[in-house]
Amino acid sequence: MLRTHTCGELRIQDLGKKVTITGWVQKLRNKGGLLWIDVRDRYGVIQLLAEEGKTPIPIIDICKSVGREYVISAKGIVIERVSKNPNMPTGDIEIMLEEITILNASKTPPFLIEDDTDGGDELRMKFRYLDLRRAEVRKNLELRHQLNQQTRQYLDNLGFIDIETPVLIKSTPEGARDFVVPSRMNKGEFYALPQSPQTFKQILMVAGFDRYYQIVKCFRDEDLRADRQPEFTQIDCEMSFITQEDILETFEGLIKHLFKTVKNVELPILPTMTYADAMQWYGSDKPDTRFEMKFVELNSIIKGKGFQVFDEAELVIGIVAKGCAQYTRKQIDELTEFVKRPQIGAKGLVYIRHEAENIFKSSVDKFYNQDELANIAKTMSSNVGDLMFIMSGEAKKVRKQLCELRLEMGNRLGLRKKDEFSALWVVDFPLLDWDDETQRWHAMHHPFTSPKNEDIVLLENGDLGNVRANAYDMVINGTEVGGGSIRIFQREMQEKMLSILGFSPEQAKAQFGFLMDAFEYGTPPHGGIAFGFDRLCAIMGGADSIRDFIAFPKNNAGRDMMINSPSTIADEQLKELGINVL
Amino acid sequence: MLRTHTCGELRIQDLGKKVTITGWVQKLRNKGGLLWIDVRDRYGVIQLLAEEGKTPIPIIDICKSVGREYVISAKGIVIERVSKNPNMPTGDIEIMLEEITILNASKTPPFLIEDDTDGGDELRMKFRYLDLRRAEVRKNLELRHQLNQQTRQYLDNLGFIDIETPVLIKSTPEGARDFVVPSRMNKGEFYALPQSPQTFKQILMVAGFDRYYQIVKCFRDEDLRADRQPEFTQIDCEMSFITQEDILETFEGLIKHLFKTVKNVELPILPTMTYADAMQWYGSDKPDTRFEMKFVELNSIIKGKGFQVFDEAELVIGIVAKGCAQYTRKQIDELTEFVKRPQIGAKGLVYIRHEAENIFKSSVDKFYNQDELANIAKTMSSNVGDLMFIMSGEAKKVRKQLCELRLEMGNRLGLRKKDEFSALWVVDFPLLDWDDETQRWHAMHHPFTSPKNEDIVLLENGDLGNVRANAYDMVINGTEVGGGSIRIFQREMQEKMLSILGFSPEQAKAQFGFLMDAFEYGTPPHGGIAFGFDRLCAIMGGADSIRDFIAFPKNNAGRDMMINSPSTIADEQLKELGINVL
Repeated sequence: MLRTHTCGELRIQDLGKKVTITGWVQKLRNKGGLLWIDVRDRYGVIQLLAEEGKTPIPIIDICKSVGREYVISAKGIVIERVSKNPNMPTGDIEIMLEEITILNASKTPPFLIEDDTDGGDELRMKFRYLDLRRAEVRKNLELRHQLNQQTRQYLDNLGFIDIETPVLIKSTPEGARDFVVPSRMNKGEFYALPQSPQTFKQILMVAGFDRYYQIVKCFRDEDLRADRQPEFTQIDCEMSFITQEDILETFEGLIKHLFKTVKNVELPILPTMTYADAMQWYGSDKPDTRFEMKFVELNSIIKGKGFQVFDEAELVIGIVAKGCAQYTRKQIDELTEFVKRPQIGAKGLVYIRHEAENIFKSSVDKFYNQDELANIAKTMSSNVGDLMFIMSGEAKKVRKQLCELRLEMGNRLGLRKKDEFSALWVVDFPLLDWDDETQRWHAMHHPFTSPKNEDIVLLENGDLGNVRANAYDMVINGTEVGGGSIRIFQREMQEKMLSILGFSPEQAKAQFGFLMDAFEYGTPPHGGIAFGFDRLCAIMGGADSIRDFIAFPKNNAGRDMMINSPSTIADEQLKELGINVL
Repeated sequence: MLRTHTCGELRIQDLGKKVTITGWVQKLRNKGGLLWIDVRDRYGVIQLLAEEGKTPIPIIDICKSVGREYVISAKGIVIERVSKNPNMPTGDIEIMLEEITILNASKTPPFLIEDDTDGGDELRMKFRYLDLRRAEVRKNLELRHQLNQQTRQYLDNLGFIDIETPVLIKSTPEGARDFVVPSRMNKGEFYALPQSPQTFKQILMVAGFDRYYQIVKCFRDEDLRADRQPEFTQIDCEMSFITQEDILETFEGLIKHLFKTVKNVELPILPTMTYADAMQWYGSDKPDTRFEMKFVELNSIIKGKGFQVFDEAELVIGIVAKGCAQYTRKQIDELTEFVKRPQIGAKGLVYIRHEAENIFKSSVDKFYNQDELANIAKTMSSNVGDLMFIMSGEAKKVRKQLCELRLEMGNRLGLRKKDEFSALWVVDFPLLDWDDETQRWHAMHHPFTSPKNEDIVLLENGDLGNVRANAYDMVINGTEVGGGSIRIFQREMQEKMLSILGFSPEQAKAQFGFLMDAFEYGTPPHGGIAFGFDRLCAIMGGADSIRDFIAFPKNNAGRDMMINSPSTIADEQLKELGINVL
């Protein structure tokens, strides 16, 4: 090693040691004959000292010649600092220079390598190697490594086996968003990159592997939002001979283990909420349960008072913003504008200020007298000083709209703290979802999810919308971090499901024939779950975006700004692959 | 869990316990009122017993109805066996059936699920889920999992950080064997799948991560040999602030750790052999050192005796096959045919039998008298009873040919045992290799490998063939399991190297500009290594082919026989991707 110590490890106990450190020049100071250089590496920062008159002149000269981000090697004696820095782990000591070597020079970086950088997103991505030197980004990747390690430790201990599934697999027309790979050896044919190893992990259950996991790259070619990446990582798991309860217990254990070992946070027992309850109370299948503010249904008490908007609505629901009765007209207007934005699409927002005991001020005073408002307040458990918001409309839509308002109020009231964690299971999802656009049933989770035994009769009677699935999501702080299901494991049921989803028998055979064949050779009952690892890292790191938990992310156009990819390829190569660019 | 115990864990101590097991029916026997069913899972095999007259008739009936590979659940009492089976861990006990449920039926498998299967390669690949049930294949994947775990443990302990590098990267014309991925969002442009994360791990060193590792899929679109796969896995590592010695020490430690923890084998200190010595002694840069049989150079003593073949040869070399003097004419003819096969291409093979003290019988008796043969024997350290083989020709070619003969003799003499392991480092590889076909210099390792400091003068003088690289391979039992180098870390040298390799400045910039730019912002000295993980698993598992250490391998045509991939894709999808099939 070119060093005896890292920049982070020397302490007052090391006084007098002759050491060699290597690293990057973070900062230089030159004060009347005293020169200090702060040197940084992955482990910390240490201060070097040279003193004119004492330190040999050639060393002083080198010290004066180095600039920010130069890579140096420095040898010297650990001495006690005159003025200590309690904010630095190495702040009690410094190194009195005896030798210094420039290992590599550096141009002036295009932005500051500090926690608060002046680099914009684009610059940071282009010079990602400099951005990654920032302690904040480095810590994110260190957190990711720890979560990876602890995930493996937990699952290894439970007898899960890590098995690599292939990356070059088969395209399915269903997966319209497959990335494909032309095959040179089989011209005109393509591999696809997996959106998940779903069928392979089921095949591993057929093969008897019993408990499988993999931390694995998956791929989806879709238009990217701020928090999506074309390649992403899953903690992918599957178990045999289990019930849904076993899966929930096992992976509740995983998430608790991760929070405990990596964040030193003891999660309480995860509550289980049905999909129906989550929609009714929070208007979302991934409720942010860091705060209450549950929806209250008001149809029975609010209709029939002459307010046409409510009278004609399928559903009238409200939430209570505690202590917000003094919200100004301007604040309420802002919130009204918020819910009327096209992304949310509400028609309006009704408020009731709970100003004092039995004294209310509302935007619908024309239609509701104080007694009626008091009755609403009582139903909503509003107290003096609270502010009630009420929305109405088509049930599905208004729930979504009020959900957005609830989250916005959570933000405004500081109820969504990044260092507080509220995790739960959402269960009993519908098996199928009707898509108006394509006029077809879609699998809410995926086509391999089994219906609840007690709902199979509905499936057979064609009451498809009411069939519940053995499907579950883990939700933390309003984000779905993982989801899974108990799978179909019998050919007949799988064929029925694919037929409901619009597959012809030929299509079903071409795409999933191998899986259905496998079901005929002794497939055990099985189920599993997959966690979005990038997302889990971001949530546990208290961040909104997954991007800084990925070493080399792509931008919203799917482009790697550092290597400038994708790019054109040579005509020869296209020819060899048997394809043409249109 | 649907079971209380696995099929592998019950012992005599468990007598009297009421247990439930689940698994696959391995075997059924029905002997005069006694029915036995062997049930198998990942953990072992256990025997169930039903007895006519004692066991309820419905249970007997179910027992009689199950077939091989049915998935069942069985409940009963652990009892002592009348006739124990010492070859089975559970052989002292059996389960007296009280309940049995068929969880899923099975058709008769197309081949036997036994260690020695009757399934051919193609059938096994098509029904891979059945093949994976065989204990032998399962154990290979379990070995792989252990090696994965122990690799991580070793590297984690040394402060290496696991960082995921991207899979969708940039195609390089150099990497003619890149798999490419058309970009839908950037029509006409392509990503490439990485042949290795080489440039990214170097960028991580620029970023200051210091010690990186990843167990990562890599891709190469080349014509497949028996032991190549289009997707393969590497243990990929890189370190900063190190010398070559540090790398060798660190990864010698890794391999010893793996052998110790997984195979309980203590590897001795790995010898280091220069490339030049390896070529001189073994005719290979990956010598199988499980046995000696080193090459002996004979030019100085064998030429000038009138045997034109030797006289005109650039190099005459031989090996001694100990104790083979009694080889028959037929055996020797076989070996002569072996080296004359087109794959090896030798013109002939000279032998000298060391029949008795100073008595020799050779195929060149016409040209060499007994004294001369004695002198050759002395030079070759041959003893009475040995057989000498001598080959001649162009130095480079004859070494390769004799290498093949040496390995063949190793096989015939049983000197290449699968459970013996001989590991070494081969170092000081040439930096560059002249390719006659393309009339160009190629990087022997890759374009980022640094030349030895003392050979830079040769590089500058244009003596390119004699420049040695800071490159090293780890070789086990004649197979390269890992290789790496100390990298170039200065822009000027990297530019020079790319220019030697025939890159124009524009090409160099287009492909590796980001790396060379990075070199200008404080790049530390660094180097690394990558191990072929599939290969390492196969060698440690004592197998020749990597295929059975991969859960879902592809065949020699790059095809996944189970899912039947690659396959054609829909015209719509091609259109969306902006490509055409020729």
